[in-house]
Amino acid sequence: MPLLSNFNIEVELMPVSAQGEVLLKSVYVSVDPYLRGKMNGTHPPIFELNEPAASKIIAEVVESNNESFKKGDYVSAYLKWQEYQVSDGTALQKIDSNTAPLSNYLGVLGITGLSAYIALMDIGKPKKGETMVVSGAAGAVGTIAGQIGKIMGCKVVGIVGTDEKIALLKTKFGYDEAINYKTAPDIKAAIAELCPEGVDIYFDNVGGTISDSVIANMNNYGRIPVCGTISNYNDIEEQTGPRLLPIVVYKFLTIQGFLIGDHAARFPGVTAQLAAWLKEGKITHSETILEGFDKLPAAFIGLFEGTNEGKMIVKIN
Amino acid sequence: MPLLSNFNIEVELMPVSAQGEVLLKSVYVSVDPYLRGKMNGTHPPIFELNEPAASKIIAEVVESNNESFKKGDYVSAYLKWQEYQVSDGTALQKIDSNTAPLSNYLGVLGITGLSAYIALMDIGKPKKGETMVVSGAAGAVGTIAGQIGKIMGCKVVGIVGTDEKIALLKTKFGYDEAINYKTAPDIKAAIAELCPEGVDIYFDNVGGTISDSVIANMNNYGRIPVCGTISNYNDIEEQTGPRLLPIVVYKFLTIQGFLIGDHAARFPGVTAQLAAWLKEGKITHSETILEGFDKLPAAFIGLFEGTNEGKMIVKIN
Repeated sequence: MPLLSNFNIEVELMPVSAQGEVLLKSVYVSVDPYLRGKMNGTHPPIFELNEPAASKIIAEVVESNNESFKKGDYVSAYLKWQEYQVSDGTALQKIDSNTAPLSNYLGVLGITGLSAYIALMDIGKPKKGETMVVSGAAGAVGTIAGQIGKIMGCKVVGIVGTDEKIALLKTKFGYDEAINYKTAPDIKAAIAELCPEGVDIYFDNVGGTISDSVIANMNNYGRIPVCGTISNYNDIEEQTGPRLLPIVVYKFLTIQGFLIGDHAARFPGVTAQLAAWLKEGKITHSETILEGFDKLPAAFIGLFEGTNEGKMIVKIN
Repeated sequence: MPLLSNFNIEVELMPVSAQGEVLLKSVYVSVDPYLRGKMNGTHPPIFELNEPAASKIIAEVVESNNESFKKGDYVSAYLKWQEYQVSDGTALQKIDSNTAPLSNYLGVLGITGLSAYIALMDIGKPKKGETMVVSGAAGAVGTIAGQIGKIMGCKVVGIVGTDEKIALLKTKFGYDEAINYKTAPDIKAAIAELCPEGVDIYFDNVGGTISDSVIANMNNYGRIPVCGTISNYNDIEEQTGPRLLPIVVYKFLTIQGFLIGDHAARFPGVTAQLAAWLKEGKITHSETILEGFDKLPAAFIGLFEGTNEGKMIVKIN
């Protein structure tokens, strides 16, 4: 488990933009579970010790020596966790701050929404009347995935860690049912009870024993998009659990991971669909925004403690 | 583990075919690992206690009161383990004994070959230059899958349980390399050494610790068609092993089971392709044929002991 003492904030000289470069000021920083893998080497490119972490950031162009950008532009890119940094402009994506609030481009209109949509549609293949279970359901991806499942006509059941999140899923995000895995005496039985027709799609964000309990309830031909296994990200030793391959054979299951970057060509179309649903009120979203550069470590650690509702973001003042 | 004492041979009166029926004499009986699941309830429809087992059988029409069949016709169907039985003709598929030896319709030109082809092509998606590992490689499906992998331009490595089978895979079935899992000091390291570019496709027939060792060597975007998990078929308690979902996430893997019956519309085309390759000498196959109705139990148990090379068949005299 990462600790606050694993992070260090350093003060450096303000960078200066050379010819062809822009000076960027970080505005919103995306804080995501997958970054844990960049610390333990499982998710390249990895973070080097004593070098800044990095993630998707919305930044403002505060100085421009690059004719493609002007002062005041907002851009999105995979950037370092720094208040200021220079860029030669490659890989910067311009963002229209009039279409949606800037922070949305890190969540529902960013990698979060794209991951939820593409994993669910491509791997989950939801059909009207099917039952879908989402783990980590109150998280950034889970809240969006569940709502897309509802739009597709599925019954959607979420798994979360507090009763407050159960209420939230049902009232705000349209989930049909939800389970508190910390208080349910038998998660497998609870899922069986809430999903009397079995589980057709398991949208997995957490892995571990929660996933064991859901997979035991899968129907034949079930699909399991594996978006994350946050329960394992801080494991030091390889964990064991019930063997999955026999159930894959007996139930003709599909279990699949994916790299969202492989689908970049579809990003504009999917983002437009998500923006349309957002505008029509068919989906809603939550952001947990902590303020101040020094909150980055706490925001990151909070992901593993479930302190976030929806997308975890740090606003740099 | 099934024992000979779990089986009983009973003598009954010879059945008589009524109007519209045929009397069938069993000629070749297919003996398959998946039948274990019909005994322990995981592979419906299950075998009832004190009722005959059943599997794919090639039978001769010895008496016909059905105008669609004449005496001397050969048919293939899922039939009971009986020397003689009557049928109303539905679900009987006529077989041309001039095109290929009758027993081939249980193996390379039957469900075995169809399973190897469809699982490899649909789920494995082999590409030229990729590395493919096959477990249970000297079995009925494994021998065919490996050869199709070679036709598709892959490097193919097999895992087997005797040195004789290693020699067989390399000399008869065109495998590039093979490993004896019973004598290799470290299967994972042995695979890493024989697959220096990693494993792109793992065609799994066995599950268990062998699969753990292969999956640890998978490349990003690896595909795992799960055709069987014979190592688990006789387990009484649920077995545990290393968790798979984290590696699915980190390496963007696809793990998929399938029901061959779902692809029936493609059987004629795929069978024609397999028959063509067989005729051109691009694939070969092995059959282990035990003679005598009373050999059925031993043939079935032999599957779990690896006494078969290729397809296990019992010839009824």
